[in-house]
Amino acid sequence: MLHDKLYAERMEVVKPSAIRELLALANQPDIISFGGGFPDPTLFPTEKLINVFTDVMRNNGGTALQYTSSDGLPSLREKLCARMKKTGGVDCTIENLFIIQGGQQGMDLVAKLFIDKGDVIVTERPTFLGGLIAFNQYQPQYKCCSMDKDGMNMDELEEILKTTKKVKFIYTIPDFQNPMGVCMSLERKKRLLALASKYNVIILEDTPYREIRYEGEHVPTIKSMDKEDRVIFLGSFSKILSPGMRLGWVVAPKEIAAKMVLLKMAADTQCSTLNMWLVDRFMDMYNIDEHIEVLRSAYLRKRNVMLKVMQEAFPASCSWTIPQGGLFTWLTINPKLDSEKVMKEHILPEARAAYVPGAGFFPLNVEHNHARVNYSCVPDEKIIEGINKVGAILKRLD
Amino acid sequence: MLHDKLYAERMEVVKPSAIRELLALANQPDIISFGGGFPDPTLFPTEKLINVFTDVMRNNGGTALQYTSSDGLPSLREKLCARMKKTGGVDCTIENLFIIQGGQQGMDLVAKLFIDKGDVIVTERPTFLGGLIAFNQYQPQYKCCSMDKDGMNMDELEEILKTTKKVKFIYTIPDFQNPMGVCMSLERKKRLLALASKYNVIILEDTPYREIRYEGEHVPTIKSMDKEDRVIFLGSFSKILSPGMRLGWVVAPKEIAAKMVLLKMAADTQCSTLNMWLVDRFMDMYNIDEHIEVLRSAYLRKRNVMLKVMQEAFPASCSWTIPQGGLFTWLTINPKLDSEKVMKEHILPEARAAYVPGAGFFPLNVEHNHARVNYSCVPDEKIIEGINKVGAILKRLD
Repeated sequence: MLHDKLYAERMEVVKPSAIRELLALANQPDIISFGGGFPDPTLFPTEKLINVFTDVMRNNGGTALQYTSSDGLPSLREKLCARMKKTGGVDCTIENLFIIQGGQQGMDLVAKLFIDKGDVIVTERPTFLGGLIAFNQYQPQYKCCSMDKDGMNMDELEEILKTTKKVKFIYTIPDFQNPMGVCMSLERKKRLLALASKYNVIILEDTPYREIRYEGEHVPTIKSMDKEDRVIFLGSFSKILSPGMRLGWVVAPKEIAAKMVLLKMAADTQCSTLNMWLVDRFMDMYNIDEHIEVLRSAYLRKRNVMLKVMQEAFPASCSWTIPQGGLFTWLTINPKLDSEKVMKEHILPEARAAYVPGAGFFPLNVEHNHARVNYSCVPDEKIIEGINKVGAILKRLD
Repeated sequence: MLHDKLYAERMEVVKPSAIRELLALANQPDIISFGGGFPDPTLFPTEKLINVFTDVMRNNGGTALQYTSSDGLPSLREKLCARMKKTGGVDCTIENLFIIQGGQQGMDLVAKLFIDKGDVIVTERPTFLGGLIAFNQYQPQYKCCSMDKDGMNMDELEEILKTTKKVKFIYTIPDFQNPMGVCMSLERKKRLLALASKYNVIILEDTPYREIRYEGEHVPTIKSMDKEDRVIFLGSFSKILSPGMRLGWVVAPKEIAAKMVLLKMAADTQCSTLNMWLVDRFMDMYNIDEHIEVLRSAYLRKRNVMLKVMQEAFPASCSWTIPQGGLFTWLTINPKLDSEKVMKEHILPEARAAYVPGAGFFPLNVEHNHARVNYSCVPDEKIIEGINKVGAILKRLD
């Protein structure tokens, strides 16, 4: 092509994701999509937001539509510090906490801060596809730890850290992991911290689903046990309020936070002042915990609807995780089947349904008989219809 | 520090900007600040936006608060394509045009797409500080062309292109340049295109102030004359509607646009869906050109107020540009004075006023006797008071 000689070397690894392109096919109104990691749009607090927006415009319009500083609205950051203490057991100040454009920007900034070409990132296997997309731009190498119902395998982690040079950070989603829906146990969190200390690496704790727990007990955050300033915590409003506002936050050691804010300024100046004001004022005018409680009970109901139909409709060769929170279950199908091929050839055209084939979540040693199945944004009756149809296909191919 | 060994090499050049830190000092309510590049907050259409927001929430709330695609809302992109034709003379489709988090993200993505360490970016001298902040992360080298009232010096550009390897792109702000306020002439735009073609480099045309012209004739955009798919155009809503919404757009050759959207997805997934809906609906419900017309006449008045007081109050050793649009004038003071030192020692403490010292706008061959002086966001009576006080100090030090 005309400009091939001009592109930076990093573009050799920045490529379209086959899975995202496949999911784009599923983005038609008649498709029942279990693919997106989307919250339920019928639960967005639209009328409350009209009141909030009106109040902000009438009282603070000149400020809310203007530029602000790169670290974000101080008032919102203060509220989030208090919330970090209350829901995450973390002591921090606004020098540790700044606002980002959702968790994705957090991952981009952390990789930009730490990764030179060839440096190593340790991830869970499988792990969040969007994380890999953020990290890939900086040309890392990956090492991976397998997962079970208690999170990442710590013996594998120790072996990796012992034998691998240039490990910069460990990326984990400890709560209702994307894509598996499982949580890291307290014991493993403690061992993770001990290993990170022994081998001097950073831990990136990504927690978008943490507050959407509808069963079981909260496990303390890794950050709450961080005695050595080596945990970077990512929080997000995407699942507890609105992903379309693009707001999340970072809690990090002061020195790291200051460097990340410089990178944030360079990348996009700041987040939307308007959206920061809206969320800040929403938390003044309404109780966000009551809103989150509504989401929890709705997603618990949807999870139950989905797992019940899976139990009835799927062949015995299938298994799935039973998430105690979050938005997904991780489906494992007959190992002789490839979930991507099954989706392309049968589920999309015949059932008019979609999931996310699991292959894209594996940075290494790809497994092909998994899928991430979302229940949060599909109406109950469509869950029943779609899962029944998928089940019939899986039985036929079994 | 604890993590020094872990940071990426690029962090050696990502440092706090002394000028931004100085301007932070000026961010107090009693300071008359000519420092920011801020639009007038009293002109934000707050009541109209309440109507727009209410309409979007009532009719499209579930979609407007949800995720959308990385290239942005199709309906807004269609509108911007039509606008590019009307105001910029550019033929494009939504495959060429995508939404970004303001112009700053455009500069970040272009540098990420093209710059390996040591590659060369050609800029105007002086040029936009924020551009240098975006580019620096990718460790480029800079070559610069001096500026006069018709924009960048094309003989210098030819000499640079002839003698320099690895030039990737030329960065220009052709309309009411930041910081100088001058425009590139049609003749120079044509020569720029010819030189870029001859030496196979990209042109990055950054146009945040283009629509804020209150005198003189529009010069055609460089993009409108781009026959070879080598111009990347950046547009922004920051100066024509609201910087706090963080919305801008890129128009680029399809192949480049597709690659930049991949980088955008990796960096922050997407812009705020909500803000894209607000701007899109605003343009449906109201005439944005009428709003821009209000801004033009207000900024023309403010410019006149400022330049008149400068004429009266400044010593003969000073000179300044007479911008026909945009938000700034570029002040040149007595060459024996350092504008940063004068601000720190006299203007801030004595006049309780601030400008942006010019040094930070020079990537090379720094000149110390300039300042960028903004008139768009200061009330008229404060312009008079502040400029008179600055003038008294400059006279005393002359």
